[in-house]
Amino acid sequence: MSMENFDWEKWIPERMQKGTPYTPGEQRNTSDWIKLNTNEFPYAPSPRVLEAIQLGVDRLRLYPNPTGESLREAIGEYHGVSAEQVVIFNGCDDALNCCIRGFTEPGESIGMLNPSYSLYQTLIKNHGAKLNHVEYEADFAFPVEALIADESKVFIFTSPNAPSGRAFSKAELAEVLGRREGIVVLDETYAEFSDWTAIDLISEYPNVMVVRSFSKTFGLAGMRVGYAIGAPEAVNVLHLIRDVYNVNHLSQLAAEAAIRDTSYYSQKVNELVETREKLCMFLSEKLKWKCVPSSTNFLFFYPSLMGGEPSPATAKSLFSFLVEQKVLLRYFPNHSLVESGLRMSIGTAAQMETVCNLIEKWVNREQQK
Amino acid sequence: MSMENFDWEKWIPERMQKGTPYTPGEQRNTSDWIKLNTNEFPYAPSPRVLEAIQLGVDRLRLYPNPTGESLREAIGEYHGVSAEQVVIFNGCDDALNCCIRGFTEPGESIGMLNPSYSLYQTLIKNHGAKLNHVEYEADFAFPVEALIADESKVFIFTSPNAPSGRAFSKAELAEVLGRREGIVVLDETYAEFSDWTAIDLISEYPNVMVVRSFSKTFGLAGMRVGYAIGAPEAVNVLHLIRDVYNVNHLSQLAAEAAIRDTSYYSQKVNELVETREKLCMFLSEKLKWKCVPSSTNFLFFYPSLMGGEPSPATAKSLFSFLVEQKVLLRYFPNHSLVESGLRMSIGTAAQMETVCNLIEKWVNREQQK
Repeated sequence: MSMENFDWEKWIPERMQKGTPYTPGEQRNTSDWIKLNTNEFPYAPSPRVLEAIQLGVDRLRLYPNPTGESLREAIGEYHGVSAEQVVIFNGCDDALNCCIRGFTEPGESIGMLNPSYSLYQTLIKNHGAKLNHVEYEADFAFPVEALIADESKVFIFTSPNAPSGRAFSKAELAEVLGRREGIVVLDETYAEFSDWTAIDLISEYPNVMVVRSFSKTFGLAGMRVGYAIGAPEAVNVLHLIRDVYNVNHLSQLAAEAAIRDTSYYSQKVNELVETREKLCMFLSEKLKWKCVPSSTNFLFFYPSLMGGEPSPATAKSLFSFLVEQKVLLRYFPNHSLVESGLRMSIGTAAQMETVCNLIEKWVNREQQK
Repeated sequence: MSMENFDWEKWIPERMQKGTPYTPGEQRNTSDWIKLNTNEFPYAPSPRVLEAIQLGVDRLRLYPNPTGESLREAIGEYHGVSAEQVVIFNGCDDALNCCIRGFTEPGESIGMLNPSYSLYQTLIKNHGAKLNHVEYEADFAFPVEALIADESKVFIFTSPNAPSGRAFSKAELAEVLGRREGIVVLDETYAEFSDWTAIDLISEYPNVMVVRSFSKTFGLAGMRVGYAIGAPEAVNVLHLIRDVYNVNHLSQLAAEAAIRDTSYYSQKVNELVETREKLCMFLSEKLKWKCVPSSTNFLFFYPSLMGGEPSPATAKSLFSFLVEQKVLLRYFPNHSLVESGLRMSIGTAAQMETVCNLIEKWVNREQQK
């Protein structure tokens, strides 16, 4: 047998031959960039996180705690739920992947709101499940009736939504949960920047599973920690499908130290929200650009010039101008609701000032053309 | 809707309702135990690993490198293959999971040698695939003809075997690869303690995928890093099925520092092998116990008393005696080839001396009964 003779088409499943990998936002290592494309927290982690890591390095040769009791206790206390309702994962992506694999069989249908976090599509297709898109309406209003009408076995969406940043209300969610069958996986990656969570709905609506991340609020994207909170029956499924040693030792320690230091993070979250509102004022009041009201750590806005309509060309022009100035935003070309806009992660106040100055420079340059 | 009314049996797939989770070896945190149950490396990591972690902590807020180029380069150099042939994972378990999900459809069959790493069964069943056991012969001789006769789409086994520690030869493996169809996933978690690897067979037999771990040789079980090496077509599948940010930032740095410090680890591996051979001499020469020849960092042996035959009762008696003395070995009750034996991870020379003294004490006590 030789390399040429092995019949890969015969041996690799069709879904894998045809699959489309998720394309993550570019990760630039150079420190001279202002990186506002993947919604990372702009501030350093709490000093207690670094202390916890220091203390943990003498135990690297041993397997991590496979059940993560101590971290789950801390998460449970933070949300006012029992540690038994919490399952930890190697990042929120891993949690979403396990929800898909654990709650559906291949061939069954999984729904998602569109546009949203496009990783869902990749995970659904990799599992061999059928993908149902429920489309957002204009301005990203929450499509309550379409969600209730949808018959997917499992439905996943981001609350508040990405990439728009727009939140919907708890009453709207409760209406959907009460009026549709099947499991709803609620990706609350950005919920810390909003004013409510669905966690307290679980006791009334056991069909909702809330997934959360340490990557945004707690500034630990590099450490990969996410978690899910749900009813006991759902939690059992996730324990069975997850990897046994899925969260490494230092990440467990770092995440626990972070979530126990609520005073540090709530102050930082307030600072970020203040910075976001200033940015929003600048874009919507001064430049008269349309901005989606944000309940997240990013802002979605539609650049326009001299009273004209937003367009993909205008959005791409600003995106490219900023790249030349070493500022990285995110442009989503694949959906009519977003192709004329840009998403900007909220950085530090100083970074936002720099970016606002650059945007004004671009506006002036374009208007002189 | 209330907690009681949600019909979990209707909404959770049957394979998840009936699943059996893998039971990991007990993780004891207390430092006064001699923990020899999960084959961890008994020595501290290289000082360069700790330096790398120190340098990495200022970047925790950013996502890790999603493709791990730098670590894959180091792994490629170590094995003399191109970095493009390497895919990194959140531990070897994650690599195995992705091989199963990427190379088979649910309903297809996956084979494994039995007894072996029982996690394979859990992963195969979680995927909804059919499990084929090919049984080991007595003394764990490699069942070449049975492997060739087996018609599973994918076959997984550990080389050298766990829990026996026994290696087979490269010629035997090549014969199997050349004479059976389909993909073979070779779990080389312990290959560093053996004298060969199948990595150089990949160019001739593209149907073999080699999976490796940083948990045993490189003493980084707590950091969760594994990798797979294979032909380009197989590597593409693994990139599609793996999580995008699957290995966290500090683990990438730690693993790279470790695999680049070959002089430190080859010295430690030699030390461990020397300790293992001394233990083997003690058990087989002095106590006249049957030991499986080991090419790993553990030893499987069959305790017996006063010239009697080994038995589950005798093995369990020694296991319990050692637990009372705060020494933890691993006992596998579920297979006739292993139920009369015990598996002991190789610790430091000092730990092994303590354990040998305790074993002699047990022998004396039992013989006076």
